[in-house]
Amino acid sequence: MDIAHALDLAHQASDAVRGTTSPNPAVGAVILDADGDVIGIGATAPPGGPHAEVVALHAAGARAHGGTAVVTLEPCNHYGRTGPCSKALLDAGIRQVFYANADPFPSAAGGAEFLRAAGVDTHFLDQPIRALQPWLSATRLGRPHVTLKFASTLDGFSGATDGTSQWITGDTARAYVHEDRSKRDAIIVGTGTVLSDNPSLTARTDTGLYEHQPRRVVIGSREVPDSSHLAQLGYEQYAGIPEALSALWDTGCRDILIEGGPALAASALRLGVVDQVQAYIAPALLGAGKSVLTWPQETTMDEIMRFETTSVRQLGSDVLIEMMMRKKH
Amino acid sequence: MDIAHALDLAHQASDAVRGTTSPNPAVGAVILDADGDVIGIGATAPPGGPHAEVVALHAAGARAHGGTAVVTLEPCNHYGRTGPCSKALLDAGIRQVFYANADPFPSAAGGAEFLRAAGVDTHFLDQPIRALQPWLSATRLGRPHVTLKFASTLDGFSGATDGTSQWITGDTARAYVHEDRSKRDAIIVGTGTVLSDNPSLTARTDTGLYEHQPRRVVIGSREVPDSSHLAQLGYEQYAGIPEALSALWDTGCRDILIEGGPALAASALRLGVVDQVQAYIAPALLGAGKSVLTWPQETTMDEIMRFETTSVRQLGSDVLIEMMMRKKH
Ligand SMILES: NC(=O)c1ccc[n+]([C@@H]2O[C@H](COP(=O)([O-])OP(=O)(O)OC[C@H]3O[C@@H](n4cnc5c(N)ncnc54)[C@H](OP(=O)(O)O)[C@@H]3O)[C@@H](O)[C@H]2O)c1
Ligand SMILES: NC(=O)c1ccc[n+]([C@@H]2O[C@H](COP(=O)([O-])OP(=O)(O)OC[C@H]3O[C@@H](n4cnc5c(N)ncnc54)[C@H](OP(=O)(O)O)[C@@H]3O)[C@@H](O)[C@H]2O)c1
Repeated sequence: MDIAHALDLAHQASDAVRGTTSPNPAVGAVILDADGDVIGIGATAPPGGPHAEVVALHAAGARAHGGTAVVTLEPCNHYGRTGPCSKALLDAGIRQVFYANADPFPSAAGGAEFLRAAGVDTHFLDQPIRALQPWLSATRLGRPHVTLKFASTLDGFSGATDGTSQWITGDTARAYVHEDRSKRDAIIVGTGTVLSDNPSLTARTDTGLYEHQPRRVVIGSREVPDSSHLAQLGYEQYAGIPEALSALWDTGCRDILIEGGPALAASALRLGVVDQVQAYIAPALLGAGKSVLTWPQETTMDEIMRFETTSVRQLGSDVLIEMMMRKKH
Repeated sequence: MDIAHALDLAHQASDAVRGTTSPNPAVGAVILDADGDVIGIGATAPPGGPHAEVVALHAAGARAHGGTAVVTLEPCNHYGRTGPCSKALLDAGIRQVFYANADPFPSAAGGAEFLRAAGVDTHFLDQPIRALQPWLSATRLGRPHVTLKFASTLDGFSGATDGTSQWITGDTARAYVHEDRSKRDAIIVGTGTVLSDNPSLTARTDTGLYEHQPRRVVIGSREVPDSSHLAQLGYEQYAGIPEALSALWDTGCRDILIEGGPALAASALRLGVVDQVQAYIAPALLGAGKSVLTWPQETTMDEIMRFETTSVRQLGSDVLIEMMMRKKH
């Protein structure tokens, strides 16, 4: 097994636990024995549980001795709720370590240095790890990473002029949205969406619920009706976006999804807190309808908000374009 | 060389002459010798010149004897300006023929039957040939195939509220548009676009012009200014879309591109003459601006115009979604 392939496996393992590890990062680790065979794969357990390296070492057992560890993030070096991973790797007799991102936490950093000093052959792999990006960005910014999601026609409408809006996108795209929700820490909507759509904001499979459910968050001053799905399921409400971001950060959220509506989406963009955009575009035209954003001012091309396209994929007949913020506006 | 690969080569050869063959189809042909080696590739010459099979046979020479022909369209069987291709293949000693589309022209059809009757092993390949679709559709409908092209932000704007619109999409997408223009028979815009943008509607490379230039067509009653680029380059003007389609058909156009603006695009959609849509989507948001379509009525979801996505590709940071009409509206 080559290192790139092992890193892929580690990445997949980490992606599978996204949403369940916050405030810790979703990390993946693979242990190879001295012959290069995979003998252990691990991912971060929920808070309080072991880190990815420890899970993978446990799976590998004694054969880890003389082996190699491939990790999506620099092994931690601090005594928190769990012992430092750097020491666990050393104690298990690991000879080589490859890791893909430097630990941005001052208190945890130094794992690579510790390992090198102890004579372990330690390498940094300069590869982006998609599943870690939100956590890395959140840690850098000191607030949750914000993804703005919307679904629209080619001409930018999320509903017709008479208010009808179901369904813009198809089954494949909707299933993908639910899977994506199952990997987030929280989903946020404005009171307008609650009052008009009565959403439940759950992450649903074909037959039931995903194991991990994101926290359900409402922004705005209007009351959520007692009869609503959200009132039955439980939700949190905040007066504004900054209040929500700060409370969510303090209670461990690192990766959140704003699902609309157009007023909340536009506010988040104008506040400059949108880090990523997910546009689900249906191959359809309405001609006129409800815009994706509620925008009170006039515009000029100099003020256009541009993003960097990071992925384009077809979901059934629909297209998902994922983007990162390019320049602040 | 296997037949699928030979068909690919034939397809590529035909794509390279798109725009230069109308009213004839852009066909590609590949001749393999008895050992299966490629000995001739040909594409349709401009009207009056030889068909693809004849060009490929000429390139192959005597080694065609005992060989195989792979063609993107059923060989013609009629004595037009050129002799029938079916007979040319037979005379050259071709033993096997593979073709990908039945000839839809009653007067030309029968090539496969003629070859079979003459003892040539003749097979139909059930594969869509992208470069032929516009011509096939035009022939079926008895009017030019219409592609509606537009460029917009994710929220469906082709310009800001103050009228500024340059540039929504990036260099890669714009270069692609010019290449695409170079394969069309005509480009159409409304008088509004002429008066506001003064376009030249040429197909430009980095350093000059493509060899094939589409006809430049304006629709509407207002006069094109003498000082405009179009007046200098030459153009045709028609009072309405049906008049334009019928005159263009009569004068040999089979594959045309409507490039806007929003009023003309909306008219063409409402008339039901749009066969294909090309949406160039920039990863950008404006919030408010000039819509892609000028739509006078209220809308409801039941009236949404849905298309079938046929291709999605990233062009630099932009995304091109190509679609075919799914249901008439
Ligand atoms: N296609 C899609 O992707 C999509 C997604 C969701 C919703 N929708 C549609 O959107 C429509 C609802 O539109 P909407 O604009 O009313 O919905 P909304 O954005 O969900 O709700 C607007 C409300 O959210 C609160 N809010 C927004 N920004 C705020 C800020 N910066 N600070 C404090 N509060 C803020 C305000 O609540 P208070 O007035 O209560 O203070 C505001 O009235 C529905 O028809 C729904 O179907 C479409
Ligand atoms: N982003 C893009 O892809 C794109 C492409 C092109 C243009 N644009 C923008 O579009 C703006 C111009 O908008 P516009 O709506 O005025 O442009 P337009 O659609 O090019 O022109 C409208 C005019 O076309 C004629 N017309 C349209 N439909 C017709 C029909 N069914 N029958 C007869 N005539 C018809 C009418 O001309 P008469 O009034 O003369 O009879 C009408 O006033 C410009 O700002 C330009 O930059 C954007």
